[in-house]
Amino acid sequence: MIESLLKEGERIDQLFSTDVRIIQNKAVFSYSIDSVLLSRFPKVPSRGLIVDLCAGNGAVGLFASTRTKASIIEVELQERLADMGQRSIQLNQLEDQVTMICDDLKNLLHHVPRSGVDLMLCNPPYFKSHASSKKNISEHYLLARHEITTNLEEICQVARHALKSNGRLAMVHRPDRFLEIIDSLRAHGLAPKRVQFVYPKLGKDANMLLIEAIKDGSIEGFTILPPLIVHKENGDYTDSIFDIYFGNTSQGKPRHDS
Amino acid sequence: MIESLLKEGERIDQLFSTDVRIIQNKAVFSYSIDSVLLSRFPKVPSRGLIVDLCAGNGAVGLFASTRTKASIIEVELQERLADMGQRSIQLNQLEDQVTMICDDLKNLLHHVPRSGVDLMLCNPPYFKSHASSKKNISEHYLLARHEITTNLEEICQVARHALKSNGRLAMVHRPDRFLEIIDSLRAHGLAPKRVQFVYPKLGKDANMLLIEAIKDGSIEGFTILPPLIVHKENGDYTDSIFDIYFGNTSQGKPRHDS
Repeated sequence: MIESLLKEGERIDQLFSTDVRIIQNKAVFSYSIDSVLLSRFPKVPSRGLIVDLCAGNGAVGLFASTRTKASIIEVELQERLADMGQRSIQLNQLEDQVTMICDDLKNLLHHVPRSGVDLMLCNPPYFKSHASSKKNISEHYLLARHEITTNLEEICQVARHALKSNGRLAMVHRPDRFLEIIDSLRAHGLAPKRVQFVYPKLGKDANMLLIEAIKDGSIEGFTILPPLIVHKENGDYTDSIFDIYFGNTSQGKPRHDS
Repeated sequence: MIESLLKEGERIDQLFSTDVRIIQNKAVFSYSIDSVLLSRFPKVPSRGLIVDLCAGNGAVGLFASTRTKASIIEVELQERLADMGQRSIQLNQLEDQVTMICDDLKNLLHHVPRSGVDLMLCNPPYFKSHASSKKNISEHYLLARHEITTNLEEICQVARHALKSNGRLAMVHRPDRFLEIIDSLRAHGLAPKRVQFVYPKLGKDANMLLIEAIKDGSIEGFTILPPLIVHKENGDYTDSIFDIYFGNTSQGKPRHDS
């Protein structure tokens, strides 16, 4: 049964802390720590409607599904990725809760009611389309990482239209684009409220940030959450990250990194 | 000789990592960790002109003096505080390098050439003037902590006029005002470049931030520096903070907290 869901080159990775299993293909697309952290970051509504934009192979929405009874709609433009996500939904028997839609996120309002979404999750392309450094990669990764088919501005605009008043957008992104992120959010009436910086090690600059903004929120109450340090000096995961991957009671399990 | 520099209620505190000694008076004003961290935060020019705005009893400029041969002008509005600072300059025999000016920072250009400053340091009042929570304190602390005689906007404006092109403003402030700080800086042509968040403990929200902005700088190259954690789980200073207070070779010295 499981094997029938897999296509050539694919494998199944499991996030042990949630028991969710994700169909991956290193050559096409596989989730990484960004997705895991994003899925755990926002305050998740217990019911209602959650949208995962730039869903890739569906990891963020699938991980988040274990924290809520809300319906989750995943939106991914690339057919190959959306197809993997669709099969991961089946693999986890989450068809009643999670739906994969293969479409441009610009068309989100064809699929959800305007001002009808409680929470939007987004792991967007991090790099400007002109950033040339990593362009010798597969087209799937290229589109997932570079702002070619969408960008920060468009994501904030879509969030503005789809979110309920006081609904929240949670994003993972890169610290070097922090000022732009803040600007885009605010230009679309999304008030940044909670930011968490992720540092690869204790003495290193942040290389990731998690940010939550509230539609129609006030400028008050901005918080920088505790630092998230990924690795110890010796390269092992810190306890916080270990718990995120394996759950609190899983000390001793092998390391897992996608 | 030293005693003749002290007035009633005053004592001398030493920052062992720099050998600088500061005249303090708990009832009037005494520096805290904010000043120590600010003095070490920016890249300090080896020569030229440094201004310390909202200088209080002069701690920031005096600590910074050990890192540079630049002239340092300290500007403090409150006579009682400027007087302590003046005597600390004498105490450290730094009269040739450090000057205390008792004036409103609005008048800075009466004392330094327009576009003539290489680096401006500022530990400003953190709280809005209407913030009522801590108003039952001495007038000296009240003015030092609340935006009564100056505010973020004015500080950025003064920095704009006094800094050289590519000169830098380094400030310590509170994370809940981060968005305003970013806005004020940019409104005055000061591009935020380096930010460091300070966390009281590993699992706690940031309670302080250090920020450096460059006059006429580009929007590119924004960095979140490594997290600065002040206390270990058991309440002791972390090694990073211990080193900042006592220097790298001072393991075993007693704790020092003002």
